Amino acid sequence: MQCRVISIGNELLIGDTVNTNASWLADLLTEAGIDVTHIYTIGDDLDTMKEILSEALSSTDLIITTGGLGPTHDDITKRAVTEIFDCELVLEDSVLEFIKKVFKKRNIPFSKSNYHQAEVPDCCEVLFNTQGTAPGMWFDRGSVKLAVLPGVPHEMKHLMNEKVMAKVKAINGDTEFRRSYYITTAGIGESTLSDEVIGRLDNILPEGVSVAYLPSPQGTKIRISAYGSSNKEIDERIDLVRNHIKRKAETYIIGEGKDLNLAKAVGELLAERDLSLSVAESCTGGYLANAITDIPGSSRYMMGGLIAYANKVKENQLGVLPDDLNGHGAVSKPVALQMAKGVANNFGADIGVSTTGIAGPGGGTEEKPVGTVWIGFWSRDEHFALKARFTNDRLINKERSAAVALEIVRRSILGIAEMPYGLKKYPA
Amino acid sequence: MQCRVISIGNELLIGDTVNTNASWLADLLTEAGIDVTHIYTIGDDLDTMKEILSEALSSTDLIITTGGLGPTHDDITKRAVTEIFDCELVLEDSVLEFIKKVFKKRNIPFSKSNYHQAEVPDCCEVLFNTQGTAPGMWFDRGSVKLAVLPGVPHEMKHLMNEKVMAKVKAINGDTEFRRSYYITTAGIGESTLSDEVIGRLDNILPEGVSVAYLPSPQGTKIRISAYGSSNKEIDERIDLVRNHIKRKAETYIIGEGKDLNLAKAVGELLAERDLSLSVAESCTGGYLANAITDIPGSSRYMMGGLIAYANKVKENQLGVLPDDLNGHGAVSKPVALQMAKGVANNFGADIGVSTTGIAGPGGGTEEKPVGTVWIGFWSRDEHFALKARFTNDRLINKERSAAVALEIVRRSILGIAEMPYGLKKYPA
Repeated sequence: MQCRVISIGNELLIGDTVNTNASWLADLLTEAGIDVTHIYTIGDDLDTMKEILSEALSSTDLIITTGGLGPTHDDITKRAVTEIFDCELVLEDSVLEFIKKVFKKRNIPFSKSNYHQAEVPDCCEVLFNTQGTAPGMWFDRGSVKLAVLPGVPHEMKHLMNEKVMAKVKAINGDTEFRRSYYITTAGIGESTLSDEVIGRLDNILPEGVSVAYLPSPQGTKIRISAYGSSNKEIDERIDLVRNHIKRKAETYIIGEGKDLNLAKAVGELLAERDLSLSVAESCTGGYLANAITDIPGSSRYMMGGLIAYANKVKENQLGVLPDDLNGHGAVSKPVALQMAKGVANNFGADIGVSTTGIAGPGGGTEEKPVGTVWIGFWSRDEHFALKARFTNDRLINKERSAAVALEIVRRSILGIAEMPYGLKKYPA
Repeated sequence: MQCRVISIGNELLIGDTVNTNASWLADLLTEAGIDVTHIYTIGDDLDTMKEILSEALSSTDLIITTGGLGPTHDDITKRAVTEIFDCELVLEDSVLEFIKKVFKKRNIPFSKSNYHQAEVPDCCEVLFNTQGTAPGMWFDRGSVKLAVLPGVPHEMKHLMNEKVMAKVKAINGDTEFRRSYYITTAGIGESTLSDEVIGRLDNILPEGVSVAYLPSPQGTKIRISAYGSSNKEIDERIDLVRNHIKRKAETYIIGEGKDLNLAKAVGELLAERDLSLSVAESCTGGYLANAITDIPGSSRYMMGGLIAYANKVKENQLGVLPDDLNGHGAVSKPVALQMAKGVANNFGADIGVSTTGIAGPGGGTEEKPVGTVWIGFWSRDEHFALKARFTNDRLINKERSAAVALEIVRRSILGIAEMPYGLKKYPA
């Protein structure tokens, strides 16, 4: 089954709004085994809408439109549809009552012009929108189906999930659908992972199974996708390559699942082992603590952190020795070591990690250029620091330092001797 | 001048990647006074590309394509163009030499298949890409111009800024362009701002000047846009409404400029007044410190912070009284007050702010539902706390609490008695 998506809205054409609706739809439809071939983004222009929609109606199996369902002159979608299908607008009572209630609740007066919002083409099936005032509409034109949805993201998603996908799946029949499995890795570069650690896969990839590497500053996700008519069938298809990857990349795999990230994986490990964590941050400035505490339930293992931005705070709050600060500078091995140990001891935590570096854009020297970061680790078993060299972008440096810090914690708990990116351990 | 954008890439049609290239282009082109009428997103399919491109070539003035310029079979853009324009691919020496150098630097062997990357249609002007290996191309087809660019965002942006915009502006001539001015507000809801504080503008808005309200969890930006053939002309057109808005919304305005945010505005104020800041965070878990330290130069005024996630850390590190923790709970006025004072005194800062609340999704009770947050403020002049009630989304709660905390700092320094969202001050 093929599909075209039409996103309507001037705000999309002037760069005010990024078209996240379209990617969300593309992802949902692809997972359902539907082939999205075109995404059009157009303005609130009736003629353009009629042109694009007419062409699509004779070229594909399914069309999803979002937007253009406003209460004012922007309301081009209903008009375009009415004109193309040569049908009439009729007042839909249930929608009218609902809109009146919404207006009343929000204390907005309901005027005559608002009646238009409750009018729908008589050739459609109304998809009642409980999240907003513009109803969705479904048109069955025989060989092609059309779903007309509001542009507000949560309203659109609600209607797709609650109403449209059931219809689409009913038409698509006992077809194959696509499922993707994600394996998340950390502390290794994408090309090293794909070329050296995992290597060539074409000799073990069955028909219809694909593997993609999705890099990010946090690490690389490996996505294994396959088509099948049941989860069981898909599982069987990907089994060989999934196990192969898990065996080869074992050291670097932090877990499975699309939404897994380092903070979540490390959090689960700490909770499992009943270990507590505290962080002492200088250059990451709160990024690391924030990433950890974004995870619900993190209060179970996260004692807290100290953002020791000023040097005297490193001394007074973490016990870093003034002689080391003066002699070696804040961005140094002894300071990283003392910060990690100091925060763990002060907070009564099992593990302490620290970051001290030059986030940039300023502050670099020839000896310590921007992107130089020392990361310290303390536990009852180990006390060491690593020296990393990132980039010249402040925000990327924060993100990457935090990722390395979390990956050090993970590997240390699991007893993996190799450190992220093969960085050397400098013991205390 | 009208323009159509064509974004090419399978990853865009399966929802892997959000089409940020298109919005970036739309914004840049709109500011230059160019009317973007269509954005197409298609896959790496030669026939679709030829169909869309052929249609566009006879319907508009300018076409920008991004993507489809890979080193492999994905390279449909060059093929489509060559076939439509009936021209030949020729090896471009300067590009070949550059690519060889890039490969050598990255230690990748240069093979015969890589020669294809240096081939370009003989009917184009090469737009040399210093950021990557795929050159951009400019086609002057008389009434319509075509720019073919790589899909990698920073490479595309570099070519647009360095090469394409100059050509476009030369063609567009002494035309009007659009300029937008941004005024950022905080601590007031969008509808209150537009309806009650600023009020109706249609009686003072000249022809061609528009005002838009752009809300976010941090606050609302007001965008004033106008067309003109010079900055001076645009300034004159918007002068009346800009001054009107600044006068009416003075209390809530944190500054001007598209990229201004609270952390930046408050940072500038602290630096200006030679004041230092420290933060004590519980429910925001590092979000606030991270927002502050994202700003380059923040070490000038930011002493640091304490993420006191565990209650015993609130006691040991901030001096919060056990009796208050036990008697009132962590999410309470006395605890917020003590956290703010404790962190300021410990870090030797002029100002301390604190957050303690229930970020969610769990942890709420009937008395203190999820989204209940106390925010404390301490300075030598004032010591008080505010009680806010946000939502049930953990990440939104973090963001909004941090925004209110920063806005409290701004208003307190400036001596504005009214607190964000009209929240009540509970003095110590």
